[in-house]
Amino acid sequence: MNIKPDCLVCLYNQALKTTKLLELDDKKSAEILFEVAKILPNYSLNFTPPQIAKDTYALIEKLTNNPDPLKVSKENSIKQAKAFKPFLYKKLEQSKDKLLTALKIAVAGNVIDFGAQKQINLEKLLNEIFDTDFKIDFYKALKTKLNSAKKVVVLGDNCGENIFDVILVDTLKQLYDIEVFYFVRGKPIINDVTIKEANESDMKKFATIIDSGVPTPGYDLNYASEYSKAIFEEADVVISKGMGNFESLYKVTNKEVFYLFIVKCNVIAQEINCGIKDLILMK
Amino acid sequence: MNIKPDCLVCLYNQALKTTKLLELDDKKSAEILFEVAKILPNYSLNFTPPQIAKDTYALIEKLTNNPDPLKVSKENSIKQAKAFKPFLYKKLEQSKDKLLTALKIAVAGNVIDFGAQKQINLEKLLNEIFDTDFKIDFYKALKTKLNSAKKVVVLGDNCGENIFDVILVDTLKQLYDIEVFYFVRGKPIINDVTIKEANESDMKKFATIIDSGVPTPGYDLNYASEYSKAIFEEADVVISKGMGNFESLYKVTNKEVFYLFIVKCNVIAQEINCGIKDLILMK
Repeated sequence: MNIKPDCLVCLYNQALKTTKLLELDDKKSAEILFEVAKILPNYSLNFTPPQIAKDTYALIEKLTNNPDPLKVSKENSIKQAKAFKPFLYKKLEQSKDKLLTALKIAVAGNVIDFGAQKQINLEKLLNEIFDTDFKIDFYKALKTKLNSAKKVVVLGDNCGENIFDVILVDTLKQLYDIEVFYFVRGKPIINDVTIKEANESDMKKFATIIDSGVPTPGYDLNYASEYSKAIFEEADVVISKGMGNFESLYKVTNKEVFYLFIVKCNVIAQEINCGIKDLILMK
Repeated sequence: MNIKPDCLVCLYNQALKTTKLLELDDKKSAEILFEVAKILPNYSLNFTPPQIAKDTYALIEKLTNNPDPLKVSKENSIKQAKAFKPFLYKKLEQSKDKLLTALKIAVAGNVIDFGAQKQINLEKLLNEIFDTDFKIDFYKALKTKLNSAKKVVVLGDNCGENIFDVILVDTLKQLYDIEVFYFVRGKPIINDVTIKEANESDMKKFATIIDSGVPTPGYDLNYASEYSKAIFEEADVVISKGMGNFESLYKVTNKEVFYLFIVKCNVIAQEINCGIKDLILMK
């Protein structure tokens, strides 16, 4: 999905938010914003948002001399997400449709901005998600596909969210006779899950973790390793988490992909004719 | 008041909002955003927000080949504001403290984003403002100053708001034996009031309209005409409307200025230790 003019402002704002998260002083923060402004005109409307984000975050890494600027933030998100595992597994136990509940759990992980909200609000938020239907709903199609699937790829997105993905993959493995491949980014980019965080989770019990090779906050086939692309192409089912993977693959790949995410911006809302905060399971 | 890193993103976002108001297509809108990005690194944290806004809007004028891009928007705001005059004059008649009510009307003009809201909501909003106290309140000091004043300067801000300012100036003239000078921008900049819109209002019945000469969306002494600066310096009371004038004068001039505005952004909220949406009458 190509950028809209709005994405330029959003990417610029994300750079500002990162400087705040890193608690940089005004001088350093302004230096980063001036440098990011310098590179924005290098793009065109033919780029995807993650392709530009790759470069703006690379600048932040360079100017802060830090190869993983959001490391602490990611660790906090994972810690906070882990605290919800008993609650989520209980939800799953009580559920009649375990696949649907596991998908809701996985999308909930994409909804939550871990670290931004207090735990007490998160439980309320999670319950709201369980009570909300997908606005675009290809659940039946996904279920049918899974019945005959052998190889399933799940494209990971953010840290924190990756802990909720473990529950989805665990459930998939219990329900279907499948092999699961969990794709992660090739290097630290924003707060996205990399091989490091995936290996530190229980994901390795249920899935083969694949370093996709991408330096983008989305599974971009231009940057993906040949190894990961082969697995992606061979998969019977691909479940893509979050907006970044959607932005990188939507209208790019011919492969059938099930996109599981919450709509967080107007550009995507308009693209798929939905509203902000809508839960999406589309293909 | 110097910019904070946040202002860079805000100014960039304002450029986007302007392209939307002008209903430009994505290509033109992106062209403007790429060009604005190119000039942002030319500044430092020693600039004021209106100084940068001057240049970003000059770019928009150039790239749209339109010397007054928000002309229609300004006209609509003025039309909408005029519809409230009977309601506001009635409020004033019923009021026991006419100066306070007139100041509230003038700050209400700064609160309202004319054109963005429906009329029915505006009446509700206006009544809320009449029921809200100033968060920083130098009303008594202003009243004392006015008692002995001969020359009063009012620094105009936006179109639409300028219609509400007429009621303030009309009231000041009724209550005090004063001469009033109403300052406007030296050229079209964003939706700010210029000599054209001021002359088309009833302001000329009550005040001498002064073309301040500034190309900035704030009364910036670096750009102000010598003529306007002389009047500014000689004034016994200066009432400055809106954030732009505040940003241009606060911590810059030694002249005592009464700033009348609503807090619309976090940078100013932090600067004066207030919250977003607080009504301010400070000096």
